[in-house]
Amino acid sequence: MTAEIICVGTEILLGNIVNTNAAYLSERLAALGISVFFETTVGDNPERLEQVVHQGLERSDILILSGGLGPTKDDLTKEIAARACGQKLKEDKEAMRRLKEYFSSTRLPMTENNLKQAMVPENCTVLYNENGTAPGMVIHEERGKEVILLPGPPSELIPMFHHQVEPILQKLRPGVLFSKVIKIDCMGESSVETEILDLIEKQSNPTVAPYAKLGEVHLRVTANADTMEEAKELVKPMVMELRRRFGNKIYTEEEDITLEEVLVESLAEKKYTIAAAESCTGGMFTGRLVNVPGASDVLNESFITYSNEAKMKYLGVKEETLNTVGAVSEETAVQMAEGAAKAADADVGVGITGLAGPGGATEDKKPGLVYIGVCVHGKTKVKKYQLKGDRQKVRQVTVSRAMTMVRLALCEE
Amino acid sequence: MTAEIICVGTEILLGNIVNTNAAYLSERLAALGISVFFETTVGDNPERLEQVVHQGLERSDILILSGGLGPTKDDLTKEIAARACGQKLKEDKEAMRRLKEYFSSTRLPMTENNLKQAMVPENCTVLYNENGTAPGMVIHEERGKEVILLPGPPSELIPMFHHQVEPILQKLRPGVLFSKVIKIDCMGESSVETEILDLIEKQSNPTVAPYAKLGEVHLRVTANADTMEEAKELVKPMVMELRRRFGNKIYTEEEDITLEEVLVESLAEKKYTIAAAESCTGGMFTGRLVNVPGASDVLNESFITYSNEAKMKYLGVKEETLNTVGAVSEETAVQMAEGAAKAADADVGVGITGLAGPGGATEDKKPGLVYIGVCVHGKTKVKKYQLKGDRQKVRQVTVSRAMTMVRLALCEE
Repeated sequence: MTAEIICVGTEILLGNIVNTNAAYLSERLAALGISVFFETTVGDNPERLEQVVHQGLERSDILILSGGLGPTKDDLTKEIAARACGQKLKEDKEAMRRLKEYFSSTRLPMTENNLKQAMVPENCTVLYNENGTAPGMVIHEERGKEVILLPGPPSELIPMFHHQVEPILQKLRPGVLFSKVIKIDCMGESSVETEILDLIEKQSNPTVAPYAKLGEVHLRVTANADTMEEAKELVKPMVMELRRRFGNKIYTEEEDITLEEVLVESLAEKKYTIAAAESCTGGMFTGRLVNVPGASDVLNESFITYSNEAKMKYLGVKEETLNTVGAVSEETAVQMAEGAAKAADADVGVGITGLAGPGGATEDKKPGLVYIGVCVHGKTKVKKYQLKGDRQKVRQVTVSRAMTMVRLALCEE
Repeated sequence: MTAEIICVGTEILLGNIVNTNAAYLSERLAALGISVFFETTVGDNPERLEQVVHQGLERSDILILSGGLGPTKDDLTKEIAARACGQKLKEDKEAMRRLKEYFSSTRLPMTENNLKQAMVPENCTVLYNENGTAPGMVIHEERGKEVILLPGPPSELIPMFHHQVEPILQKLRPGVLFSKVIKIDCMGESSVETEILDLIEKQSNPTVAPYAKLGEVHLRVTANADTMEEAKELVKPMVMELRRRFGNKIYTEEEDITLEEVLVESLAEKKYTIAAAESCTGGMFTGRLVNVPGASDVLNESFITYSNEAKMKYLGVKEETLNTVGAVSEETAVQMAEGAAKAADADVGVGITGLAGPGGATEDKKPGLVYIGVCVHGKTKVKKYQLKGDRQKVRQVTVSRAMTMVRLALCEE
């Protein structure tokens, strides 16, 4: 069973708003095991909207349209969808009752165009709107296709979809879908793919697909079956195989868990505290750690030591080191990590120093050169990275790499 | 001239990521005076992608495709776009040189599938990627249509579009379009809109359109004319009017200038240094300041004082204050700002303390409550904010608000 999402609204095409409805609907439909092959955004233009609806009816089983159900002249979604399904509009008594009630309770003036919101196609299920005036509807097309119309504002669309549309879709679809994600934080997308090329080539059910994220690669394993239990059973051997291949390069198998959450959890489990000394990242490492509610269990303080003086003053980095090998060096990263742990009396110290660019390059130090030191109870590891990208990307990836180094250091302890 | 945006990626159809590229491209195309009538998202499926590309070639002058240029097997955008334009692929020497250089400098293993990234259609302009490995390209189709392929990651797509594609599009379009942006950092979108309702209602040439950004509102004034000079003349009175209405609520009128850049520049002009003491933001304020190359002129060090102990130890916040009014209070924010300035011997001190949520609420302190103190040469101002949104959004907006407070404090000095 395939669905197609059609978002109606000139404001999306002008870039005035980001289309979060499409992302929400896509994610929910995937969870319901309904494949979405196309998402289209079209403006408040009757000819182009009609063209898109006709095309959708030809190639998909379910159309989900959002937006254009309001009372104004350019809200035409319902009229066009009804016409495309060969249906006339009729008044829905309950919709009319609710509309009148709304206007009498708010004492807003009810105009002639408000009344058109109570008109619905002849053969449809009306979705009454608990959070606004425009009712949604599921139009039953004669070939058995379903055309679902939803109001545009997310505060109306989300509860209507979740409470009223999902139960309808669940009944339409045979079987269930289950998917699991495997998140890898220390390999590039193409290296990951090379490792699983054989699995991708022979995949059918379950499938496995890599997604590149900033500093990470996610692998999604998805199976289709008659029951949830069967689907989960199908996913299992593939996940086991991926675990065997990637080992502790996998930082989580949970959909909602981020690298910083894994880090905070690992530290909290060991009752460890962490302190960072950040130069080129300027606080981004600690800032990301604080994304996690409860970071206060593992973090008391960190140091943003941008100048050489600050590195000496708070972390005890040696002046000689700075004068000879310089601030961007293995030695400085080590002294920063150890100095941060000592000054904060923390179990784990992190030292980050690098050239984020674009300026500051020398003969042997190019932008993107980063040294990260990680010290756990006096045992220090240091790594050199030559990262690609602009200043922002270098700094963001640096934060990910530092988190991975801490994660692995804790694993290996 | 009409353009159509085609985003390629199963991860968008699965709702794994929100399609911010479409919003970015739409906004930029609108600014260039190019009408976007359709946006389509399609998965990594060759038949469906080809169908969408063919349809786009029939109905639009310019196709902009994002995503699917990577090295993996399901990255097929280039192959399909070339076929739809009737072109074969050939190796681009410069792309190959860059690819090899990248892999030798990063010491990552270069696999066979990486090499396919250097293959480009016969008749195209190659857009070399300064922030990743996949080059973009403008395929010149025989009927005079242009098919523009861009990498999916926004950190690669945005600079490539801005620096390389926009100049090409400007030449394609008859007449010229000039637009100017006015960035406001201390008002919400609806307040800004209310202030300019009359201007929006009677607009024709130039137009003015508000865009809500995180913690900011941008107003774009756009004029259409035969020559650049005329277009600039048309924009002028509207910009003057907006300046009159918003005054120093405008932090810049430059497209590429960010709030943190304005801040670093204002500090550098006065030869001031700044130091922050960050609690709930955990380093994000300073991290954002360090976005600006040359931040070292104004920043030596900052403090991430997450625990009460750290606030006392590094900033001299009084134990009595923490025990009576608590860490999230006006008094603590003031002492943090003053303490940071003193400890770092800086001209400007910033203190940020708040409840980012979701936990930690009390009877009179709800998540989203933030106090920001700003101290310039011993003169301290403090403000209370009750921000909306999740933990992340509260912290990001807090950083913006703190930057605005420093900016205004420097203006008023």
